Amino acid sequence: MSAPTLAGPTGSMIIGFDAVTGTGPRQTSTDPRTGQALEPGYPAASDEQVEAAVTLAAAAAAPARATTPQQRAGFLTAVADLLDERRDALVERAHAETALPLPRLTGEVGRTSGQLRLFAAELLAGTWQDACVDPARPDRTPLPRSDIRRRRVPLGPVVVFGASNFPFAFSTAGGDTASALAAGCPVVVKAHPAHLGTAELVATAVRDAAVASGMPEGVFSQLVGTGNETGTALVADSRIRAVGFTGSRAGGLALAATAAARPTPIPVYAEMSSINPVLVLPGALAARGAELGIAFVGSLTLGAGQFCTNPGLVLAVDGPGLDAFLDAAATAVGADAGAVMLTPGIARHYAGAGDAVAARPGVQELARGASPDAAAAGRARLLVVDGERVVDDPALQAEAFGATSLVVRCTDTEQLFAVLGVLEGQLTATVHADVEQAGDVELAARLMPVLEDLAGRILFGGWPTGVEVGHAMVHGGPFPATTDGRSTSVGTLAVERFLRPVAYQDVPEALLPAVLRNDNPEGAWRRVDGELTRAAIEEGLR
Amino acid sequence: MSAPTLAGPTGSMIIGFDAVTGTGPRQTSTDPRTGQALEPGYPAASDEQVEAAVTLAAAAAAPARATTPQQRAGFLTAVADLLDERRDALVERAHAETALPLPRLTGEVGRTSGQLRLFAAELLAGTWQDACVDPARPDRTPLPRSDIRRRRVPLGPVVVFGASNFPFAFSTAGGDTASALAAGCPVVVKAHPAHLGTAELVATAVRDAAVASGMPEGVFSQLVGTGNETGTALVADSRIRAVGFTGSRAGGLALAATAAARPTPIPVYAEMSSINPVLVLPGALAARGAELGIAFVGSLTLGAGQFCTNPGLVLAVDGPGLDAFLDAAATAVGADAGAVMLTPGIARHYAGAGDAVAARPGVQELARGASPDAAAAGRARLLVVDGERVVDDPALQAEAFGATSLVVRCTDTEQLFAVLGVLEGQLTATVHADVEQAGDVELAARLMPVLEDLAGRILFGGWPTGVEVGHAMVHGGPFPATTDGRSTSVGTLAVERFLRPVAYQDVPEALLPAVLRNDNPEGAWRRVDGELTRAAIEEGLR
Repeated sequence: MSAPTLAGPTGSMIIGFDAVTGTGPRQTSTDPRTGQALEPGYPAASDEQVEAAVTLAAAAAAPARATTPQQRAGFLTAVADLLDERRDALVERAHAETALPLPRLTGEVGRTSGQLRLFAAELLAGTWQDACVDPARPDRTPLPRSDIRRRRVPLGPVVVFGASNFPFAFSTAGGDTASALAAGCPVVVKAHPAHLGTAELVATAVRDAAVASGMPEGVFSQLVGTGNETGTALVADSRIRAVGFTGSRAGGLALAATAAARPTPIPVYAEMSSINPVLVLPGALAARGAELGIAFVGSLTLGAGQFCTNPGLVLAVDGPGLDAFLDAAATAVGADAGAVMLTPGIARHYAGAGDAVAARPGVQELARGASPDAAAAGRARLLVVDGERVVDDPALQAEAFGATSLVVRCTDTEQLFAVLGVLEGQLTATVHADVEQAGDVELAARLMPVLEDLAGRILFGGWPTGVEVGHAMVHGGPFPATTDGRSTSVGTLAVERFLRPVAYQDVPEALLPAVLRNDNPEGAWRRVDGELTRAAIEEGLR
Repeated sequence: MSAPTLAGPTGSMIIGFDAVTGTGPRQTSTDPRTGQALEPGYPAASDEQVEAAVTLAAAAAAPARATTPQQRAGFLTAVADLLDERRDALVERAHAETALPLPRLTGEVGRTSGQLRLFAAELLAGTWQDACVDPARPDRTPLPRSDIRRRRVPLGPVVVFGASNFPFAFSTAGGDTASALAAGCPVVVKAHPAHLGTAELVATAVRDAAVASGMPEGVFSQLVGTGNETGTALVADSRIRAVGFTGSRAGGLALAATAAARPTPIPVYAEMSSINPVLVLPGALAARGAELGIAFVGSLTLGAGQFCTNPGLVLAVDGPGLDAFLDAAATAVGADAGAVMLTPGIARHYAGAGDAVAARPGVQELARGASPDAAAAGRARLLVVDGERVVDDPALQAEAFGATSLVVRCTDTEQLFAVLGVLEGQLTATVHADVEQAGDVELAARLMPVLEDLAGRILFGGWPTGVEVGHAMVHGGPFPATTDGRSTSVGTLAVERFLRPVAYQDVPEALLPAVLRNDNPEGAWRRVDGELTRAAIEEGLR
């Protein structure tokens, strides 16, 4: 590690353009290796400081909307540049707070800045505006048709709750923040308590970029909170228009309930829990059962298993191939050295959730890995159960959030479908098939519509951990994987979560937003009378 | 009217492909002129019959999804053809049940069949699939990129609640049904109690078309219910995946609460209440205040004022122009003959809501129209109040659902903005400006961002009644205009309410849906590495 390129964390929040020290109870993040509090402390925001951040965000909504896509792209790019520039200091602090390996954190900063640059490019491409023009038809009978045009506008101030397991990519300047800022929404981040120092360093970069890019003050703030109070107050505030959250099911459901109980309800995009079923088909098991068992454990134990897309459930039909898979997987789990988890609380929850599943009727423990010497120690764990149990016992679907997985031994493919039929909504569903074998191909074809109904992403031949940031990615899925399976929290499609359509009927050219003007000054793709085109509208059509 | 071209209503529901008589309490629609029950009676669905319809819908979900867009387009076109063919019988029954004028109902059948044809065309255009391909990059460093593709899939069975005021365009085969069927979702309609006979005739046409088009049984059913019980049971059923509703705020909120309380919550698209502010700017008032006053009353009294987009609120700055507007409007309202409303219940609610607003402090009644001799009589009513009252009194924003409007006299443009600042979300906001006058143009430019935040559609120089069915239309808006301001219930964009995105990672070509295959057999627009194209993917990119 080279020396940090900027001053370390100071214990501040960011309210508007200012670094502000909270006046509430002092919070600290914890070194998960030692369980010791990390300095500096972060006094939490007072009610007045929460109010100040929301007031600034509300005041920034109109000017943020009025910024051009070019200006917002410049802002996102400036954030990306600063994250890359300050990477070593960011990684150093995040390593202290999360115990995630340095190469992983270094890669995650790159992923985060890359994500910001992708949204910047998307802003310039303009597709996100979903522009549409139905030109007037004055001669239509029996009634003439008005000129009607449509674009998307930002919802307004968004509250973002970062995730413990991605201190960069899903936190202060992560996907939710990037997509909301791209949409033209001000963002108020509730800093994740597990990495307050990282959060401050990243928030400072966002603030610096906002100032340098001429964005309105209030377009970004970050608050430190106490327990759930600050977050609940933010979501309940009438000036907040949407919420982005990545975390536990209990947390996501509580925020969704708060949002639904408002006099004016707002959308909550909460990514909550998923056990990401992996289906290993008979042909694949027969051809390479042991090899798949080893690869599976590689995905299972990656990052101490602390991924939303961790493979927590394996479905397979019983037979010699499955025995080979289980033998190899059990050996690999038994040899696993364990890992330091993100926080002592997460490690306790993980162990308890695994114990609870292991104690269900019919569940057998096949292997357990070693435990590292740390305050937040995580041991890998492999469990197995018969398919009929899963059909009857919803408790077997609990997410452990760590390197525990349950292998479901099905008697036949009929039972495999029965198990799939009772599964809750998932972020991902993975299929390992031998595409040379007609049986696997036929089975995979029957599985496809079931998996489409179950999950937001279907993978063949890989592992669900690892979420590519691109245009086609869907990181979402039916409840309870998320509160809203109609969207994604990763990839450019995420920008539409913070937008709504507005139609303009017979609005004079001079008052139309640029993307809807006849001459199409941004050269955006638009649907004109239903046909996609980048052409201008002929004047005669007005 | 020519003679009906098919047998009249029989008192049946449609469950799957069968006409079924309910076994519950007998329901009747009422002639709003006389208050007398109309024959035939409709025994409501028993619990078992509700169960049968939902079971069929759930069983139809997979085969409905598996239909090609071409097949679904054929189905929608067949419904449209039958509605046009049976138009006279439909209009005759609807006229008896709603008292809406024959020409209006005849036009509404055409609008409804046209809407179905538009969705059929949209299915063939393919844009709705939002297809996206990020081809693999095996040589990318440090990690290769997987092949990731995305399309939209249907949510599954949808429950649709028709509207009283559009027995065709927003009911059994209206926009919600058309967009859900286009998406590939089975639909269970709860027939509107005010027009049970019309609902049966339309449902029979949908059933006939489903049979003729080879759609799976269960893709469409229609139930008759008792009170709110049947609807609540449908929304609470775990197999239902989304809800479309047009009606009262109380009804929409109740359904949204039921949906949110499910173990697995689902989206509710409820269009509820809107008073559709009309802003008449000083230049327009000065140039043609009286003319605008008369045109306003034309929009206000159209269809007895029973439109979601009825102009229930007029905002203007005080002055001679506003006096001229009010004089002309008061004269027109005073001369109005009144109209038969849809049901005696709606007429009672309308009169009561108008009385409640008229009784608020500071409200003055300027004019009242005549009352027709009918069980469901509606009288036009014009009220006026000072702007400062509206800022302080939320009760002035109550929707009357009829030909009552409140004119808000503002002292200056500052007060106009203050009033706009307290308004609830709206379907529409209308501006009348004199575009030759710099003052009006400057004021309109300041209004635009405020109106974008307030409403789903902004109109210049027209009236909000009349909702064009096209690609660019937005018939939606922030809460409480709808429960979900991110969507529209009219126009082709409505199809996306019943779809969710699914990503396919490294899925073998043979298992991909047609729209995502390399050769793009449907010739659909797709984003390939972010660029819109209809080209095939080069094989080398797999």
